[in-house]
Amino acid sequence: MKFTCSQKKFLESILTVQSAVSTRSNIPALEGILIETENDVLKLVGSNLNLSIESHTSATIQKEGSIVVPARLLTEIVRKLPDAEFEFTVLANNNVKITCLNSIVTLQCFSADEYPALPDIAESQPIEINKTLLIDMIRQTTFAVAVDEARPILTGALLEIDGKDVAMVCLDGYRLALRRGVMDTPHDSVRVIIPGKSLGEIAKILPEDDRKVSITISERHVLFDLGYTRIISRVLEGEYINYSQIIPEDYKTRVKVDTRILTSSMERASLIAREGKNNLIRLNIQDQKMLITSNSEVGQVYEEVPILLEGEELEIAFNARYFMEMLKVIDDPEICLDFTTNVSPCVVRPINDHHYTHLLLPVRIYS
Amino acid sequence: MKFTCSQKKFLESILTVQSAVSTRSNIPALEGILIETENDVLKLVGSNLNLSIESHTSATIQKEGSIVVPARLLTEIVRKLPDAEFEFTVLANNNVKITCLNSIVTLQCFSADEYPALPDIAESQPIEINKTLLIDMIRQTTFAVAVDEARPILTGALLEIDGKDVAMVCLDGYRLALRRGVMDTPHDSVRVIIPGKSLGEIAKILPEDDRKVSITISERHVLFDLGYTRIISRVLEGEYINYSQIIPEDYKTRVKVDTRILTSSMERASLIAREGKNNLIRLNIQDQKMLITSNSEVGQVYEEVPILLEGEELEIAFNARYFMEMLKVIDDPEICLDFTTNVSPCVVRPINDHHYTHLLLPVRIYS
Repeated sequence: MKFTCSQKKFLESILTVQSAVSTRSNIPALEGILIETENDVLKLVGSNLNLSIESHTSATIQKEGSIVVPARLLTEIVRKLPDAEFEFTVLANNNVKITCLNSIVTLQCFSADEYPALPDIAESQPIEINKTLLIDMIRQTTFAVAVDEARPILTGALLEIDGKDVAMVCLDGYRLALRRGVMDTPHDSVRVIIPGKSLGEIAKILPEDDRKVSITISERHVLFDLGYTRIISRVLEGEYINYSQIIPEDYKTRVKVDTRILTSSMERASLIAREGKNNLIRLNIQDQKMLITSNSEVGQVYEEVPILLEGEELEIAFNARYFMEMLKVIDDPEICLDFTTNVSPCVVRPINDHHYTHLLLPVRIYS
Repeated sequence: MKFTCSQKKFLESILTVQSAVSTRSNIPALEGILIETENDVLKLVGSNLNLSIESHTSATIQKEGSIVVPARLLTEIVRKLPDAEFEFTVLANNNVKITCLNSIVTLQCFSADEYPALPDIAESQPIEINKTLLIDMIRQTTFAVAVDEARPILTGALLEIDGKDVAMVCLDGYRLALRRGVMDTPHDSVRVIIPGKSLGEIAKILPEDDRKVSITISERHVLFDLGYTRIISRVLEGEYINYSQIIPEDYKTRVKVDTRILTSSMERASLIAREGKNNLIRLNIQDQKMLITSNSEVGQVYEEVPILLEGEELEIAFNARYFMEMLKVIDDPEICLDFTTNVSPCVVRPINDHHYTHLLLPVRIYS
């Protein structure tokens, strides 16, 4: 195997695939990047078996072949190479020689035979989705996936497609995040559960431009095709919870509030709350105003937030971290909080955009 | 105690003194910031006994007094307050109430009586030194202080003043960094050893402007006066090594080299060297070129760097980290490396600026 390539382009590809590379694996080759010639382009692959990322880059290929290069070392070396063309040659015993101007770096590598076979997904009937919509869906929901593996299915996000409608849902037993959207091109009805971690990595490497992502779903995998980059994630098997049943339709108390003012007050209340053992903030909802309080052994916070109240006054408490994480993903200037009782879930939605719904269970208080 | 102050100004003062605050101390009050009214200004103090920072800020003082507020919590709370005036009141039992618009934060604090007395240094005959010169001296030398406490004096930097000449020196037994400078205003001859850690913190909070710093040296302390901010560090007692004796005057091999090219090659060689157990780079100095090589079980690097050679060819080896740390602080485009033998120290100086001298011991190689 032998090729020449520009340092800049090669580094870009390395950085793209690197986020999927295993940091510690029983299969040492998985800590490397697979580099393969594929006709007149170079294919780089990083994988941790759950998630694989392929990146294609142009290069002048003198001799076909493939090799696996230790990822961390390759990244650091290529980052420090001069901004010039370099020559990459596979020598005997899986040694790789990289020559660039007056530098020669030799690296001990792995044979491509040691790299596990990756799923091959044929693209048929792909779902075409806007990149910014996909990024928003991931950002606004995946923080709510379950972290413990007691119910593995809840560590994933449900992606639901029906015609032009698309929805992503995550829930962990304490909260639920639902982001709906509308696609330009309709698609058959389909549901798939994608690990939250995979989606997090995908959001990081998706360039924010106006182009579309093609998504293909197979039995065990889902493929995100961005053109030069292809991302393949394992899917979670099983039935997802019927989430729409959980979201209450009625309310007895409705609060309309400025998102920025509420966030600012909540941030201060959280600083004191998190020093206590329950990380608790209390809301006292009255006509015209909501009092937010928290206390722990280090001190107390008392905040008055102006609101519009519809319905009954209410006292209710929440986990401060969950409340803050929800507020952080809402970009709208005003939100609406719907309550029934102080032991039933609160439903939060932007006032002018019903694409986002967040449901949050309160914490019981005995005051 | 009661005052009103702008959130912005108060936060600025907090951030200035915070770097001296103890993170863990046997005296709990030292984990706080001392706030004192002083006529019509507010004085904030952070200290870890080795280093104390005082910052003064204007405020409207309604009632004199002093209190110690937990530093981390105060910083976070004030950072999250709205950009407005706030009212600060000390209540009974060392409780502090901070009121800002619709927020009331109450914090459990310490009595100022629990805060240790800080050294009081009268400013007499201060040394007037340019801020950028002081920052450069610290940056270019203090990385070379000894980290182990076997010889405590070597964990400090020697500051030497003689007339208009100023010098800062650090050495750890493997290397020596010396930065000389010239002051505008002469001062009597004086020598003081300041802990490297204190200087590191001082460099961080020195604003890079053209104003001067006044330095006053007392028996046990040194005071850096920046106007609104005063920094007091303990000094190290004892005799510093007569460093000028150590620096060789002669050489048998002199190499002139482009700093940027050498740094770039060294960076690559270091990446491989640090994977080995000795972190070793080898220099093979020849006419017109210097070969830099490193190898470890992960691979090898071979670099050719163009040089101008005066004197004898030489093979010599160095610790890669020490070599890199030295290169990082040299801003000049060309440097000069003087060698005698491959077991005696190498002296590095910028070609056009003899204000900086670095001495580096080689590592013995048996090749």
